[in-house]
Amino acid sequence: MEKEAKATLDSFLGLVRKIRSYDEAIGLMHWDLRTGAPRKGAEQRSEVIGMLSAEDFKLRISDEMGSYLEALTRPDTYEGLDDISRRIVDECKKEYDENKSIPAEKFQEFMVLSSHSQTIWEEAKAKSDFAMLEPNLTKLVGMLKEFIGYWGVKGTPYDTLLDRYEPDMTVEKLDQVFSKLRDRLVPLVEAIAASPNKPDTSFLDQLFEQEQQAKMSRFILGEMGYDFEAGRLDESVHPFATGLNPGDVRITTHYLQDDVTSALFSSLHEGGHALYEQNVSKELAGTPLAQGTSMGIHESQSRLWENMIGRSRAFWERYYADLQQHFPQQLKDVQLDDFYRAVNRVENSLIRIESDELTYNLHIIIRYEIEKLLFNEGLEVKDLPKVWNEKYEQYLGITPPSDSLGVLQDVHWSGGDFGYFASYSLGNMYAAQIMNTLRKEMPELDQHIKEGNLAPIREWLTEKIYRYGKSRKPSEIILQVTGEELNPDYLADYLETKYKEIYQL
Amino acid sequence: MEKEAKATLDSFLGLVRKIRSYDEAIGLMHWDLRTGAPRKGAEQRSEVIGMLSAEDFKLRISDEMGSYLEALTRPDTYEGLDDISRRIVDECKKEYDENKSIPAEKFQEFMVLSSHSQTIWEEAKAKSDFAMLEPNLTKLVGMLKEFIGYWGVKGTPYDTLLDRYEPDMTVEKLDQVFSKLRDRLVPLVEAIAASPNKPDTSFLDQLFEQEQQAKMSRFILGEMGYDFEAGRLDESVHPFATGLNPGDVRITTHYLQDDVTSALFSSLHEGGHALYEQNVSKELAGTPLAQGTSMGIHESQSRLWENMIGRSRAFWERYYADLQQHFPQQLKDVQLDDFYRAVNRVENSLIRIESDELTYNLHIIIRYEIEKLLFNEGLEVKDLPKVWNEKYEQYLGITPPSDSLGVLQDVHWSGGDFGYFASYSLGNMYAAQIMNTLRKEMPELDQHIKEGNLAPIREWLTEKIYRYGKSRKPSEIILQVTGEELNPDYLADYLETKYKEIYQL
Repeated sequence: MEKEAKATLDSFLGLVRKIRSYDEAIGLMHWDLRTGAPRKGAEQRSEVIGMLSAEDFKLRISDEMGSYLEALTRPDTYEGLDDISRRIVDECKKEYDENKSIPAEKFQEFMVLSSHSQTIWEEAKAKSDFAMLEPNLTKLVGMLKEFIGYWGVKGTPYDTLLDRYEPDMTVEKLDQVFSKLRDRLVPLVEAIAASPNKPDTSFLDQLFEQEQQAKMSRFILGEMGYDFEAGRLDESVHPFATGLNPGDVRITTHYLQDDVTSALFSSLHEGGHALYEQNVSKELAGTPLAQGTSMGIHESQSRLWENMIGRSRAFWERYYADLQQHFPQQLKDVQLDDFYRAVNRVENSLIRIESDELTYNLHIIIRYEIEKLLFNEGLEVKDLPKVWNEKYEQYLGITPPSDSLGVLQDVHWSGGDFGYFASYSLGNMYAAQIMNTLRKEMPELDQHIKEGNLAPIREWLTEKIYRYGKSRKPSEIILQVTGEELNPDYLADYLETKYKEIYQL
Repeated sequence: MEKEAKATLDSFLGLVRKIRSYDEAIGLMHWDLRTGAPRKGAEQRSEVIGMLSAEDFKLRISDEMGSYLEALTRPDTYEGLDDISRRIVDECKKEYDENKSIPAEKFQEFMVLSSHSQTIWEEAKAKSDFAMLEPNLTKLVGMLKEFIGYWGVKGTPYDTLLDRYEPDMTVEKLDQVFSKLRDRLVPLVEAIAASPNKPDTSFLDQLFEQEQQAKMSRFILGEMGYDFEAGRLDESVHPFATGLNPGDVRITTHYLQDDVTSALFSSLHEGGHALYEQNVSKELAGTPLAQGTSMGIHESQSRLWENMIGRSRAFWERYYADLQQHFPQQLKDVQLDDFYRAVNRVENSLIRIESDELTYNLHIIIRYEIEKLLFNEGLEVKDLPKVWNEKYEQYLGITPPSDSLGVLQDVHWSGGDFGYFASYSLGNMYAAQIMNTLRKEMPELDQHIKEGNLAPIREWLTEKIYRYGKSRKPSEIILQVTGEELNPDYLADYLETKYKEIYQL
């Protein structure tokens, strides 16, 4: 590589590190707002986040960035780059081209608004008052429609949003995949509803001390290999994981006294996200590649740990005794098999994050369809509660008794994250497909889980997925790991096998 | 005011708000590092802090700032400014002139180094290993000597550092004030040592549950009027208060199972700092005036609440029963008067933050003299433990058995804060002088305290001091509130009266 090109590359990587510094500071401020920042400082904090996000954004679309990218993408220079640098250049170039057209002040306005709206959402949800949040949501949707114009419409306007979370994903593909999945899952859900062999879940309707729940969450996270010296566990209204840097990947959960499974499985879930980011290769630290490659692949890891491992019989053969020790009074007379069946009960319910792994996909399809209506077919924000409730009745046969149990249950829209929800079902499908390969390559998998020997699983995933961070695309990952493209049949196969056994179909 | 000048002022205030945004983000990252950030992310975090601090610094000395200041300090424009704007201009101008000469990369290096050194300090202190910290301290002192050159030597090089924390304070003045104070306190300390009437403190040597201590700290902070909706209480190795914005003023404490007084009085102390910043006038928010006017005045408020109120007999007449309720087993047989005398015991001890309000000033004089030696007389960092131990032997008659109980006990130097320590004794002197005025203007003061009616005190302090933030200079504050300049006799009078009674001299 020429000396001049080397100097340009170094300057470029310096700028990239600076941008990551802004990201880390902004990430910490978001984490703080959601885990315990005092209420009276929140408005000013939103302004600060907006201000620094605007600076961050300015750097991403700066003339400096533009000239580095121009120099580094010249064919002879580009060919001479090492693999990692080339991926960083690709990533920055894609983002640069996408964002160059958005005026910085618009972006700042959007960031202030979305940060502020998340704070309002917490209160609106607590009061079940959609009208409190509506003006902000309307503004967010309006601004996103404007941004879609800047970004360029791909197929349909909504495609442009989908692509932000799952590169190259489209309404056309999703309609196809979701319909295939629906065709196989709907009969299964119906058969389950008709089955007389329902798990007894009555023992879950007890009070479980929050302190003991916190201990159990910490224990399970430790067993998974979550590194507490490179992260921390806190409480927030809505559980989340945030990777500030590979040595600081934080997760949160929410302890409900009357539901021991909520924090338990959300810890496994967020722990899965965190394992991904904690195990990204060190050489990617400080670059935009030190994160999950897409929301869908990210979610595949949370789902794999939460459901395919955490809700497996093998897992509880090892850990049920520990859970009983944490709650002797509540669980001493409950048998392992009854516990396993209870935490896998299938039920048409209102809350996405508390729903089972089977009907979960229906919760996602509802959100996906509503977002399509909003961005492709002119649905107005004020009509969201009505449409939401209608779709819940149609798909799940239940109508939310209040907006806090309905349209206000998720933080995503108040944060401006439209187009994100589909990733959750993509995650389920990717997870099942990856798990199928893992099982073939590691025939002793169940034995490992039964012995609490989870390290080989984490290491296999690190070797195949985690270490690459964003240096490989989601489609590359899934093809290289499993040998084929996304195929929803693996999820359907897995769910059918598992639930036919549980419900004795 | 002319239209053009108005536009310049608005742009200037916008830039000032942006600088405050960086400050808030950096402040949060520091808070986070010290209250629970994971160890493995700390090094990267220090880099991020360094990067954003450099950006912050660049804005402060930017050509943009320079041209605004030039325009706004033109006599006709300056005269037309409102009081607040004029103060903001003064503040920024002073800082601009001071810092303009420091290259941004030097400043960034210093910020990275000091942030990183604080992390090393925690470990060095835990291991009592001064050698671990020495290379960093040597670099920090070297850089500060270089910075003094940039800032300009005032009187002596060390004066330049003092002035950063207490404007216009000099070695000449401090030598004078400290000598006057020493002349009155040394005989008092000697008389106390010779007194046969020592408080019985044996009942303090019990274990006090940390959870109960936390409850008591929260209760007392609530009584003082600390607004938990505009702040939060956490734990850290070294207690501190940090005002991120007037709606987010955080404090920390440190619960020691074998010392109930430590967290109790540090909460009162940090609570005093926090009351100051929570009660700065709203119109100053987002400006550099929304903070305490100097370290000395800031410290006067922590001292006033911790010692002059919190260690008064009147205070415990109201609150001792609450403390007993929190620790019935430990305190049920201890009388109020014995408790009052015990928490006011005078003892020559090793740790500054746990020392009594009388000998505290000797701890400060030691640090003040060592800093003078470092910056004015060529003392080398490697000799710090030796000089430290000699001075403790000379002034307090005790030699630290380890560096963690000696030269490593304070965070300040590892954070580059040389010149800061003197503020603590200045705080004591200011506090006594302010308290003397408060007592004259509010003859029912003791009665209020005895009734737990602390609001009138907080309101008086808000009216006289807090609301002004940094819009009045320390010398103005002390003159306007008390009618005279700093006078160490008030502190000496207060201490003599109090301790002659306690020790029956």
